[in-house]
Amino acid sequence: MTKETATPGGAGTLLQLLRDGVPRTRSELAAVTGLARSTVTSRVDALLASGLIGPSGEAASTGGRPPTTFAFNPSARVTLAADLGATHARLAVTDLAGAVLAEHRADLDIALGPVPILDWVVEQGRALLTRTGREVGDLLGVGIGLPGPVEHDTGRAVNPPIMPGWDGFDVPGYVGERLPGRVLVDNDVNIMALGEHYTQWRDAGHLLFVKAATGIGCGIIADGQVFRGAQGAAGDMGHIRVTASGETPCRCGNTGCLEAVASGAAIAARLAAEGFDTANALDVVELARAGSVEALRHIRQAGRDIGEVLAAAVNLFNPSIIVVGGSLALAGDHLLAGVREVIYQRSLPLATQHLRIVPSRTGERAGAVGAGIMVINDGLGAARVDGLVSGG
Amino acid sequence: MTKETATPGGAGTLLQLLRDGVPRTRSELAAVTGLARSTVTSRVDALLASGLIGPSGEAASTGGRPPTTFAFNPSARVTLAADLGATHARLAVTDLAGAVLAEHRADLDIALGPVPILDWVVEQGRALLTRTGREVGDLLGVGIGLPGPVEHDTGRAVNPPIMPGWDGFDVPGYVGERLPGRVLVDNDVNIMALGEHYTQWRDAGHLLFVKAATGIGCGIIADGQVFRGAQGAAGDMGHIRVTASGETPCRCGNTGCLEAVASGAAIAARLAAEGFDTANALDVVELARAGSVEALRHIRQAGRDIGEVLAAAVNLFNPSIIVVGGSLALAGDHLLAGVREVIYQRSLPLATQHLRIVPSRTGERAGAVGAGIMVINDGLGAARVDGLVSGG
Repeated sequence: MTKETATPGGAGTLLQLLRDGVPRTRSELAAVTGLARSTVTSRVDALLASGLIGPSGEAASTGGRPPTTFAFNPSARVTLAADLGATHARLAVTDLAGAVLAEHRADLDIALGPVPILDWVVEQGRALLTRTGREVGDLLGVGIGLPGPVEHDTGRAVNPPIMPGWDGFDVPGYVGERLPGRVLVDNDVNIMALGEHYTQWRDAGHLLFVKAATGIGCGIIADGQVFRGAQGAAGDMGHIRVTASGETPCRCGNTGCLEAVASGAAIAARLAAEGFDTANALDVVELARAGSVEALRHIRQAGRDIGEVLAAAVNLFNPSIIVVGGSLALAGDHLLAGVREVIYQRSLPLATQHLRIVPSRTGERAGAVGAGIMVINDGLGAARVDGLVSGG
Repeated sequence: MTKETATPGGAGTLLQLLRDGVPRTRSELAAVTGLARSTVTSRVDALLASGLIGPSGEAASTGGRPPTTFAFNPSARVTLAADLGATHARLAVTDLAGAVLAEHRADLDIALGPVPILDWVVEQGRALLTRTGREVGDLLGVGIGLPGPVEHDTGRAVNPPIMPGWDGFDVPGYVGERLPGRVLVDNDVNIMALGEHYTQWRDAGHLLFVKAATGIGCGIIADGQVFRGAQGAAGDMGHIRVTASGETPCRCGNTGCLEAVASGAAIAARLAAEGFDTANALDVVELARAGSVEALRHIRQAGRDIGEVLAAAVNLFNPSIIVVGGSLALAGDHLLAGVREVIYQRSLPLATQHLRIVPSRTGERAGAVGAGIMVINDGLGAARVDGLVSGG
């Protein structure tokens, strides 16, 4: 996204190395990067001055005064991360390693429109910063996840079906006038994939994160980056046709879509038609947790339907990890069991021999964690760090 | 694939600029790259000495002696490109822009095993070089496409179903002892996607190339590169289930796979059962060209079945171009019509508003062209050029 270019061997390059948390001496940094010792010294000084690294102790001496080691300082700055859902919102303040320092959750209807919602983000964000003992000036940036399609480069929602008033609204402009740092916006499933990948599966190049909730979406990580496709619409798996759908009509105007049969909304409607008191995905989860065989049966079948689409995605993308998250996944392992059943039945051995299909570990925090990571990856990118530190 | 690193502003960087074919003066090169005029002069001298660029004329003068312009010289070196199919092989010598200078096609059974097949490539390759008036020493490298899964980094086939004796064979080692330059190997559909993208759609970041022939495969270009996934198995669309398949058994052991109903082999078998004399995909194409309504009907339906899987791929990948190639596509636009019908019916408007679904333009040459491009992209990469030219 950034058009800036990094200085090879600049401070940003050193910081990328140190972000793994391992302390290193100046000599080690010179050896790994191939930079002159004098260059490393000036870069380290610049990073020390910025606070992004700190001295972390002494290395074992080979004779003489033991050399100082330096390590990344994740508390140098913080991010404000907002995961805005259809009816709930979660705010978090994270450090530069993506650890959540404080969080706040509220019922909030996205349909209120961008101004009241974003005012809430700014106001509660300031309060949350205060609660962690940090100041607004400590912000590296603000990350926001929205429950609809987002043009990532501009941070604007594009024809979001459930977000009246948001279409084309300049989210980074509005928030950027009220809080410091860069403001980045993305679709909620993309940031969930990013958060889960960065915090749990950083060594896996290719990951799919499926969110099964009111709707069904998929965030794709390829070569460690969010994969967006030509118009940023990649991962829209809710409207792929599934075999067991019959010709069930979908809100998109087509029939037989995955979302029409396997979403939380679809299951709630089907259970309601069977006489249960279920209005949404969370009601379905509650019913399942209370032991309703009917609810469990529907969730399991939803897992199978989702698994059918994922089996196709496995053959096309050849991921190494599939993470199953979203509120429907909160009802125990029934959804996951259905997903696994069909993927292992339908996919080719070559594509599944190293494939892991796992529940989300970041759970309900996935979106907020990912929004923080989005800000950190951008703000600590080599090019931007070169600009950030003096002398770098 | 290369572990070498480019020198920023090295000769390789200048060559990347000039590969677009546009002639530039030293001043223009300095302005675009931000390099010092003296640096540009020495890099240009090194590239001139290597023959990779040449003087191409004079720019309009602003007073005084008009400055010389320099342009990429695509005839500086050549590639030997081999597209090895199940029963046919095609060899080409290409220049550094990927243009085919000479080609040779033969019936050749891949099941003969690697030694006789690769000996044929080496022997016929030498003859083809002679025919174009070039020497073996002019080779930048050799590119080979194989009709089965390939581990691209090592150039070895991995459990290829129709290639007895090839499993694990060191193709680059064997050919590299007999011809100069690097030897690169990939799956045939990946190089077809690469060739079609590079020569026809270089500005499109995301492209899918579908090969519908004896089998069905898909090569994926994402951000201008071949997308391979975690184990290099990405794009294996032949074994995704389709609705209209009933429970047709597939050679993979599953039922209802796309390949079991829509491949050239499947159509040939169905037509044979109906009394026609069709043993393979080319027989089907011949029958269709002769006007057989039955053959046309089956090809059109195969297009619809392929379109169903591609509709899912469109929602997941959001490509901007889908290219339909392979021998089944040679029977006029019937296959393409079926593909288009279902994709436009099943995909979401956001994903299809800028989507183009087109026939292959490189046609039967797609594989050979792509094998050449694979060698060129590797051999003219900035890092490798820095090593290639003296003084760079």
